[in-house]
Amino acid sequence: MEYISRTDQDGISRVVIRRGKVNAFNDNLIDEMSRTFGELALDPSVRSIVLTGTGKFFSFGFDIPQFLGYDRERFTRYLANFTRLYRDIFLHPKPVVAMLNGHTIAGACMIATSCDYRLMVPGKARISLNEINFGSSVFAGSVEMLKRLVGPRMAENVLYSGAMYTAEEALRMGLVDRVASEENLEEETMKVAREYAARDPDAFRSIKGLLRRAVAERMEKTERDSIEEFVRIWYSEKTWARLQGKTIHG
Amino acid sequence: MEYISRTDQDGISRVVIRRGKVNAFNDNLIDEMSRTFGELALDPSVRSIVLTGTGKFFSFGFDIPQFLGYDRERFTRYLANFTRLYRDIFLHPKPVVAMLNGHTIAGACMIATSCDYRLMVPGKARISLNEINFGSSVFAGSVEMLKRLVGPRMAENVLYSGAMYTAEEALRMGLVDRVASEENLEEETMKVAREYAARDPDAFRSIKGLLRRAVAERMEKTERDSIEEFVRIWYSEKTWARLQGKTIHG
Amino acid sequence: MEYISRTDQDGISRVVIRRGKVNAFNDNLIDEMSRTFGELALDPSVRSIVLTGTGKFFSFGFDIPQFLGYDRERFTRYLANFTRLYRDIFLHPKPVVAMLNGHTIAGACMIATSCDYRLMVPGKARISLNEINFGSSVFAGSVEMLKRLVGPRMAENVLYSGAMYTAEEALRMGLVDRVASEENLEEETMKVAREYAARDPDAFRSIKGLLRRAVAERMEKTERDSIEEFVRIWYSEKTWARLQGKTIHG
Repeated sequence: MEYISRTDQDGISRVVIRRGKVNAFNDNLIDEMSRTFGELALDPSVRSIVLTGTGKFFSFGFDIPQFLGYDRERFTRYLANFTRLYRDIFLHPKPVVAMLNGHTIAGACMIATSCDYRLMVPGKARISLNEINFGSSVFAGSVEMLKRLVGPRMAENVLYSGAMYTAEEALRMGLVDRVASEENLEEETMKVAREYAARDPDAFRSIKGLLRRAVAERMEKTERDSIEEFVRIWYSEKTWARLQGKTIHG
Repeated sequence: MEYISRTDQDGISRVVIRRGKVNAFNDNLIDEMSRTFGELALDPSVRSIVLTGTGKFFSFGFDIPQFLGYDRERFTRYLANFTRLYRDIFLHPKPVVAMLNGHTIAGACMIATSCDYRLMVPGKARISLNEINFGSSVFAGSVEMLKRLVGPRMAENVLYSGAMYTAEEALRMGLVDRVASEENLEEETMKVAREYAARDPDAFRSIKGLLRRAVAERMEKTERDSIEEFVRIWYSEKTWARLQGKTIHG
Repeated sequence: MEYISRTDQDGISRVVIRRGKVNAFNDNLIDEMSRTFGELALDPSVRSIVLTGTGKFFSFGFDIPQFLGYDRERFTRYLANFTRLYRDIFLHPKPVVAMLNGHTIAGACMIATSCDYRLMVPGKARISLNEINFGSSVFAGSVEMLKRLVGPRMAENVLYSGAMYTAEEALRMGLVDRVASEENLEEETMKVAREYAARDPDAFRSIKGLLRRAVAERMEKTERDSIEEFVRIWYSEKTWARLQGKTIHG
């Protein structure tokens, strides 16, 4: 593992994303996350999982500069893997707590919404699904997960505005579940993770399935078409120009 | 066009319902609205749409006196056209902002819920789905659109009570998105319309589809049966008597 | 009828659960409730229904000591009947008001969520879906009904924590609709029941179907699988041990 570290203690596994300054998602990182969550699902010693980033970023989302070198086919393959990852976390048999230590943007926000609980630091950190601002669409599954948290009407505001929300704003909307200062984030997160770890694992998995399986099936059914549309818009002349602009100035 | 006026400026199209004092919906008005929204969908110069009424009424809903002269078949045909109109607006590729300048009752409230954003004047204006008060049912699609805005539990209160809500009450429930005084309504509406107009059109249309297509499919699948049931109850002896009472006193 | 009493007055039928101190659900009680609600559906003199318990309990839920003597097949049959009962109430053609006079636990909370309106006494009474605390799962339909009232995210909190909520907490979450003191419970409940009774019965039934039929179909489709999973976990070694512990200490 190059970009993911995993450390287990007292039945709680901590998964940390470590890729450069902004933890941008690329093929390798997504593969490593998928493998890690697959192993965690099968490890009977793990009772709950904490997913977090490093420094000022949970993650900035997709590694756009790298993807500008991809052709459609390769990018489509990446997107299929990425959306499969958030579906796998969404239906993961173990509880997954997202410790949002910093900015949680675009694809990173999608991963956060797939978890069971979200804690976020106040201050300069922002959470956002800002795809529309560079002329990009999103994915069917990400919309379903967002709607569950903030309701269908607020989901429209989030996606149409592409607004960058503070932790407090996100809490009011239901996009995160708790705000915890940088000093307390660790402790508060572990408290939540320990509460989840205390649940009966079979009952938890069964109830989580009842709560989420129907949504996950709807996600899966529409995901492929939405990826196709996403790719079509991504490679459109004007969106492509904006993405290159982001790279040069970003 | 006899009952609909359309004026475009700076990429924003303004559609005004003008039919008598209360803008009651009949065959011709619904046909004109359908044609207008169809043309707007295809016009590349249009980036967003404002839909509004005149005087003290956005619209009072169905033109009941006229419909009392209809037989079942003709009324059923009208209802199929009416429900198709709100589904077309619900999935319209352009953003549609409802400027609720006054009373927004029954069928008119259904049209309002199909838009992307609702501003409403305070004061004497009311918004309501009051069908139950004259012993009438509603339509499957209208229920789905209402549930998205106010949640399934509150939707029951709205439909079972038939209550007439002020703009402020509607705002608290999520049935409208903003209250704007008569003097500011125009300006605030145009601000919202301009914000929508600034979005990338392809990204907007794609995201709107992801947010609404599954609901729209559910609406379409159940609409025909619900129209049949609506018609059966509408022509029942006691509801018919109440509708005639409304006509005489209304 | 041994455990259910029914008294009708002015179009309002009052159904009281009377089984021991805690009104625990067993085969006979569920059969009697099913028969009673079936008769109420067909009785044209009944315009609305009040469902309540006795003493300090609406109901404590399943009669676990009795079910510990059941084999899987018999228990599965009971669960099929129990889940059919809450679906029947959920889609009952008449309005059903739950008068929660006291503790409303587990299966009893499921019955409460199937009604149209819930009033609950403050003080020591608690409402809870606490199945996870003894290592048990719940049922697909019960999850759908809960999600409608409190939203999908809060439904996770309710089911993962197994928390015991006061009436005030339940009101804030949307799990009940009104808190009424012991002295006022009767009067406030009757006021709600009379309001429902004043609605046009055909319009009410039609609108209730539009609001709930799609959910009920989803419930029915997944219920059988969820009962199978429930039974598997119920008879697992560790859950069985906890259930027996409850019996000894309870």
